[in-house]
Amino acid sequence: MKKARYYSYLCGKTIGKMNERLILVTNDDGYDSKGMEAAIEVARAFGRVVVVAPETTQSGMSQAITMYNPLYLRRIREEEGVAVYAFSGTPVDCVKMAFDYLLRDERVDMVISGVNHGSNSAVNVLYSGTMGAAIEGSFYGCPAVGLSLDDHGADADFAAAVVYGRRIVGDIFAAEVELPLCLNVNVPVGSVGELKGMKLCRQNRGFWREEFYRHEDPRGREYFWLTGEFVNGEPEATDTDEWALANKYVAVVPVQVDLTDYRQLKNLTKVLK
Amino acid sequence: MKKARYYSYLCGKTIGKMNERLILVTNDDGYDSKGMEAAIEVARAFGRVVVVAPETTQSGMSQAITMYNPLYLRRIREEEGVAVYAFSGTPVDCVKMAFDYLLRDERVDMVISGVNHGSNSAVNVLYSGTMGAAIEGSFYGCPAVGLSLDDHGADADFAAAVVYGRRIVGDIFAAEVELPLCLNVNVPVGSVGELKGMKLCRQNRGFWREEFYRHEDPRGREYFWLTGEFVNGEPEATDTDEWALANKYVAVVPVQVDLTDYRQLKNLTKVLK
Repeated sequence: MKKARYYSYLCGKTIGKMNERLILVTNDDGYDSKGMEAAIEVARAFGRVVVVAPETTQSGMSQAITMYNPLYLRRIREEEGVAVYAFSGTPVDCVKMAFDYLLRDERVDMVISGVNHGSNSAVNVLYSGTMGAAIEGSFYGCPAVGLSLDDHGADADFAAAVVYGRRIVGDIFAAEVELPLCLNVNVPVGSVGELKGMKLCRQNRGFWREEFYRHEDPRGREYFWLTGEFVNGEPEATDTDEWALANKYVAVVPVQVDLTDYRQLKNLTKVLK
Repeated sequence: MKKARYYSYLCGKTIGKMNERLILVTNDDGYDSKGMEAAIEVARAFGRVVVVAPETTQSGMSQAITMYNPLYLRRIREEEGVAVYAFSGTPVDCVKMAFDYLLRDERVDMVISGVNHGSNSAVNVLYSGTMGAAIEGSFYGCPAVGLSLDDHGADADFAAAVVYGRRIVGDIFAAEVELPLCLNVNVPVGSVGELKGMKLCRQNRGFWREEFYRHEDPRGREYFWLTGEFVNGEPEATDTDEWALANKYVAVVPVQVDLTDYRQLKNLTKVLK
């Protein structure tokens, strides 16, 4: 754990002043999604923006990496301090491409992933490509923020996500935060005026139960399509991201990458012989 | 957290006696990999075995799910208490297919994922399809064990992985373990006699730095291929899985799925306004 403001532990460079800052933006819905425009709106308020985002939708890709395929990089556009690249891999591939190739001689001050079309609260943090990219970003010695809006609709309104995204990113830049820092931010549906503010919370315990949709393809072969229902494992708890979202708060969960279950580590000394 | 031995919290059924036990086996290397045979060898010592594993290699797929494609299930064989199915999705899709469709009216007593060709120690737990499946398995109210052998070679010897896998699974069935329980087990290269035993440890802090291999495809388009190097962030620590593996111990790390960073949760009350 190191102080983020003045020192990035990988490159040893000081973090820049506001107008020199460099923000990497990615997502899992693809470089040309509506949520990507919202994420760029958040980022451009703080400095220069480089987008490296998937060519196509990569929802549910978790922290997957592409090991067995070549990947293609495409420069989409560059204007007014925003350069946009599309990469044919997963969200995590995009982050690696940015840090280890495109921006390897530059200092990145923040990674913003999103704004996702749909929430990534509770256990969804594990399946989410948006959060996979944010977690990966936090491995590179800068803060990372995953932003998601609890609305899958084509006409989703990202205005509140932009306002709260800017507030959170601004707060991080203004403070001396410890690294690693990765935030899972979920914004409820509603206008800024309708939302009640931010709430720091913990990840809700819950899980998905799937129903496989079964049908026959045009050649008569039976196929399955994943479809499921989220089960809130603790609907009474008021300190979780699920509760915050349901009660019109922007849910902010700090995410760690040490998966060690220290409680079980102690228990297991009596179990494993 | 519930007691596992007599009660599975999802189905409310008691867990069976040894000869009635049902073990779900999956992996990320595909149903016909050598490591799968080793995992079946582990599982069949404890009861009936159902394999639902990917059609093709799914290494690096993390906890990805397939949202935008139909999936196909294929029955490969059934003999001597072992039924093998191939599923065209990710490792996590395979676990969901097993619990939510194929075995939905049965009680699964354990999920075994692996034996992976290559270790999944340290941060690799996050990218690993083997561990993605094990984590998913632990959501279904039974213990889950991910097994990996620190050898990518085609002639890798899985004998020690089978011996230690059986020992660990046996210990879990013999004890009253708390749920959820998910283990990330990594076996070093070597014969059983060469290994020094098991070591309960924590996940090593480390990360990958990538070099993108660049080349031109037959049509003259530049492509990138991910290739990297693991950086051990704490080479001196002696309580991590990396240390255990390097010192010929079988590394056992209990894995949790609450990603909340409680330390940062406290810190951030001063950061976010």
